Parts: sequence; C-alpha cells; structure tokens
Amino acid sequence: MQRQRRAIRSRDVILRAAAQVVDRHGLTAATLSRVSKQAGLSTGAIYFHFADKDALASALEERAAHALDELAADRSRELAPALTAMVDTTRELARLLARDVVVRAGFQVSCDRAEGGVPVLRRRLTTLLTQLLEDARSDGSLAPGVAVDEVAATVLAITVGVQILARQPDTARTVALALERFWQATLPGLTDGARDAGP
Amino acid sequence: MQRQRRAIRSRDVILRAAAQVVDRHGLTAATLSRVSKQAGLSTGAIYFHFADKDALASALEERAAHALDELAADRSRELAPALTAMVDTTRELARLLARDVVVRAGFQVSCDRAEGGVPVLRRRLTTLLTQLLEDARSDGSLAPGVAVDEVAATVLAITVGVQILARQPDTARTVALALERFWQATLPGLTDGARDAGP
Repeated sequence: MQRQRRAIRSRDVILRAAAQVVDRHGLTAATLSRVSKQAGLSTGAIYFHFADKDALASALEERAAHALDELAADRSRELAPALTAMVDTTRELARLLARDVVVRAGFQVSCDRAEGGVPVLRRRLTTLLTQLLEDARSDGSLAPGVAVDEVAATVLAITVGVQILARQPDTARTVALALERFWQATLPGLTDGARDAGP
Repeated sequence: MQRQRRAIRSRDVILRAAAQVVDRHGLTAATLSRVSKQAGLSTGAIYFHFADKDALASALEERAAHALDELAADRSRELAPALTAMVDTTRELARLLARDVVVRAGFQVSCDRAEGGVPVLRRRLTTLLTQLLEDARSDGSLAPGVAVDEVAATVLAITVGVQILARQPDTARTVALALERFWQATLPGLTDGARDAGP
C-alpha cells in the first residue's frame, strides 16, 4: 500500500513537472531531461511511469480532458437554465486554467499536437458549448433569433484567448475581468426576449 | 539587378515556407530541413539568406511586427473617432491573420519564444489597444466611466482567441463572425453616453 501511494505520488510529481515545462516551453521543447530536472527525479524514474515523452504528453492531455468532462457533468447546474450553465462553465474553465498548470499544459499539448488540424480538446470544448447553447434554446433561456453557431464561435474565441493569456505570468485577474466584461456585454443580447430569465 | 531581384524572391519563398512550417508545427519543430523541403530549395540556399534558424524566426517575427505597425499607422483612420479606429484595427488584424501565413507565423514565433513571459508582439498589441482606448477617452468616443484597462483586457482576449483560431483550417468565416458578434455586443456599452457618436 505504502509503495503504491509513493508510486502515485511520484507519478503526480512527474506530471506536474512535465506540465510546468510544457507551459513554459511548449511540447516540442519539453524534453524528458528537462522534465527530470524540473521534477528532481532521474529519467529512469520517469521511464518507470511513462513509456516515452508521448505517453507523458497523452497523460497531460487526458487530465485536461477529464477536467473538461467534470465541468460538463457538474450536477449543480442541472436546475439552472442552460445559458447560466454555459456562462458558469466558461468561468470555471477560466479559473481552472489560471490555477492548474496541469490542465493548462494539457490544453497546450492538445494544441501542439494538432499539426494544423483542430486540437482534440478544442473540438470537445466547441461541442460542449454548442450543446449548452442548444439546451438553452430548448429550455427557453436563449432568446429566439440568436444564431447558436455564431454565439458558439464568439464564446470559443474568448475562451481560447483566455486559455492562451492564462499562460502569461500574473494575468489571472485580468483574464477573469476580461471574461466578466465579455459576459456583461454579451448576455443582454442573448436573453432579451427569452422565455426564461437569463443568468 | 536581375540577380538581386532573384535573391529577394528566393528570400520570400524561404520566409513563406518557414511560415507554413511554423504555422503547422510550431517554432521548435520547424527544422531547417523541413523548411528547405517545403521551399523546394537546398538548406545551402537557406543559409545563403539566413545565418541560422533563429535569424529566420526573427525575420518572421519582424514581418508580423511590421504588419502591426502598419495597422497602427493607417492614416485613413486619423479622421475617425479613436474607438472606430480600434474596432477597425481588430477587424483588419483578424483579416490579416486569416489571410497571411507569414503574419500568423510571426505571431506564433513570438508566442513560442516567450518562454513563460509575455510575447513581444502581444505586449505591442496591448500597448496599441490601450493607446487607442485612451485616445477614445480623450476624443469623447468612449463613454465616461468605462475602465480602459478592463476593455483592453477583453479586446486582447478576443483578439488572441482570433489569432489562435485562425491557425485552424477553414475558420476564416467563423473567426470573422466571432469578432463581429463580439463588437455588436460590446460597442453599445462603450459608446452609451459618449460625447461623440461611436462607430
């Protein structure tokens, strides 16, 4: 048991170190020797947990995907109008990105792996936002006449901007403010004339 | 003369090829052999024009910086209210990023080089947006009571989002729509109660 706990802990130490290196230098420059130095562990210890750099990158992406799934599945939002749930989702994602280097690095890995295509996590985020907007249309929290795909594109753009700006040092407050101002400006147009009172 | 023209042309071919590789794979993965393959030129031909990969990266960043300066200096905006100038600047930057792989790659290089700090071009873009907002405050096109730094943060976030999304294939229309929707939603709050009619 003790050994297993230690193994889980050192796996977490490696993931966190890898995240810090990716967050700072990007995926391609994140060599295993940099990660081992950051973690204060031998490369042998890293290979004990991860077959290669690719496996480590996948683990980071998986963590971010899991965090996104948890945001999407948050039960506390079930009773709220879907539009409120969407706004809250973007807020929590922004907070998570500002606070959690592993999640931030997971999104970065996804971008760096996309090779000119659409990053996997961005595709999932787009699906989530579109779904919430369609739910908002169904539950009456979104005003009729609002084009779901246009709003989804705008929300995606601000969310991606927030994701990228969160990598900068000391931007947590600015990023949160930017998102709040965005919603302040955007929400009236989305809820005006809606059946249900918006957020 | 002819030889000189040929030299300029092949320098442009190399820059464009480098931009395509950076746009797709990021700066670190953009090896000179990849660039030479993309350009259809020998690595010797590349070394004739650029001392090393770093010089090539600097040239891309410089091109993007120049494009940003040109946007900032556009004389046609001198007679317009500063708030209109700011909106137009973000629109043209979005168009430029969607259309011009060299500018897009220049911004990417700037990000990839930042190493956890603030990318040089992002800092310049922030300065430009803040300046235009302060001008808008002076010329009365921005409503009193609007916090310049908050608006600058929001506009920066949407612009960075647009910059990143522009790397995805077939997003030009979506990105333009996202920006238009953003301004549609945001402008009334910025101009309401302003001395001068907004854009």
